[in-house]
Amino acid sequence: MQKIITLSTDKKNGLYDITGQVTDLIKASDISTGIASVYARGSTCAIMIQENWDESVQNDVVNLLQKLVPHGIWQHDHQDDNGDSHLKSGLIGASQTIPIIDNKPGLSTWQNIFFCEFDGPREKREVMVTMISDK
Amino acid sequence: MQKIITLSTDKKNGLYDITGQVTDLIKASDISTGIASVYARGSTCAIMIQENWDESVQNDVVNLLQKLVPHGIWQHDHQDDNGDSHLKSGLIGASQTIPIIDNKPGLSTWQNIFFCEFDGPREKREVMVTMISDK
Amino acid sequence: MQKIITLSTDKKNGLYDITGQVTDLIKASDISTGIASVYARGSTCAIMIQENWDESVQNDVVNLLQKLVPHGIWQHDHQDDNGDSHLKSGLIGASQTIPIIDNKPGLSTWQNIFFCEFDGPREKREVMVTMISDK
Repeated sequence: MQKIITLSTDKKNGLYDITGQVTDLIKASDISTGIASVYARGSTCAIMIQENWDESVQNDVVNLLQKLVPHGIWQHDHQDDNGDSHLKSGLIGASQTIPIIDNKPGLSTWQNIFFCEFDGPREKREVMVTMISDK
Repeated sequence: MQKIITLSTDKKNGLYDITGQVTDLIKASDISTGIASVYARGSTCAIMIQENWDESVQNDVVNLLQKLVPHGIWQHDHQDDNGDSHLKSGLIGASQTIPIIDNKPGLSTWQNIFFCEFDGPREKREVMVTMISDK
Repeated sequence: MQKIITLSTDKKNGLYDITGQVTDLIKASDISTGIASVYARGSTCAIMIQENWDESVQNDVVNLLQKLVPHGIWQHDHQDDNGDSHLKSGLIGASQTIPIIDNKPGLSTWQNIFFCEFDGPREKREVMVTMISDK
């Protein structure tokens, strides 16, 4: 089964927890064991598995990437002024593949699934979730 | 269906667009919806989803990684003088999993699939593409 | 087929080669061609494909990440003092998807599969391996 999650983002850089939506899709798929491939459809965004106890790690992710990939010093900035957004996207990666266990995402206690926005705010972002049984 | 893409690279560090070859393989697979797992067979290369409007982002990727991972300061350099190549490979990652939608790669407008060379030039590099239906 | 690999880790930061265990699971699966999704169940660890000629590259990975993500300067440190562990985990990523070729992991000569520990030592870490045929 393949489904799109759509979301809007309200910050230039920010992490958005989509664990609930992915869990609902997996439940609807009736797949007991297998994988869910979670894919960010955009070259200035990404998918990250990360803790969501509170907002501290999410803020740290944004701050780390701003240090590693400063704004305004890239060749691509002459076109769109968003060279850093593309580089952050490439560094984190568009896809993560999550095991499906007992018809649920096989995350550990502190793992959540985040959509990473690096060039927001955006009215509509798309995440494609493809679920495949191992049977 | 599983197929190899082979390519040669002409630079020490460079990104090579393989979207056309992956698209052709997906078409030949007759899979309507599912996933294509794209895997770089080498520990000094990687796969990245990135924009391909022109060469600016590709150059920026090479420059960013050269800043983050300088050449010549690693323990592994005493063997092969390519410690930085391995580190860039590990940071970006050997695999990306792309949704197949309507028998095509489910990329957004500005997303392309790149093979990242970090220890070229090489006569023959291999990318393994495994396509699996969600049915 | 889906199976868990468990391991214990003896360092704060270190790479642990799990290629043998993944190879054994693939053999037991009887899958000839397909994919093996390898997933680290923890938000302070990751999966990396990397060379294992000797320990040099593994040490370089630990040292690179310590430079890029210093300890003790993150918002999350006020809770657990392990903000850097989470950031390294997010940067490398929880999952890698490896092709299965001829009932073996489709690695190249110098590729091995590593579990990356960023917040050890830990008595029990879990890696979920989900194998799916392309037939």
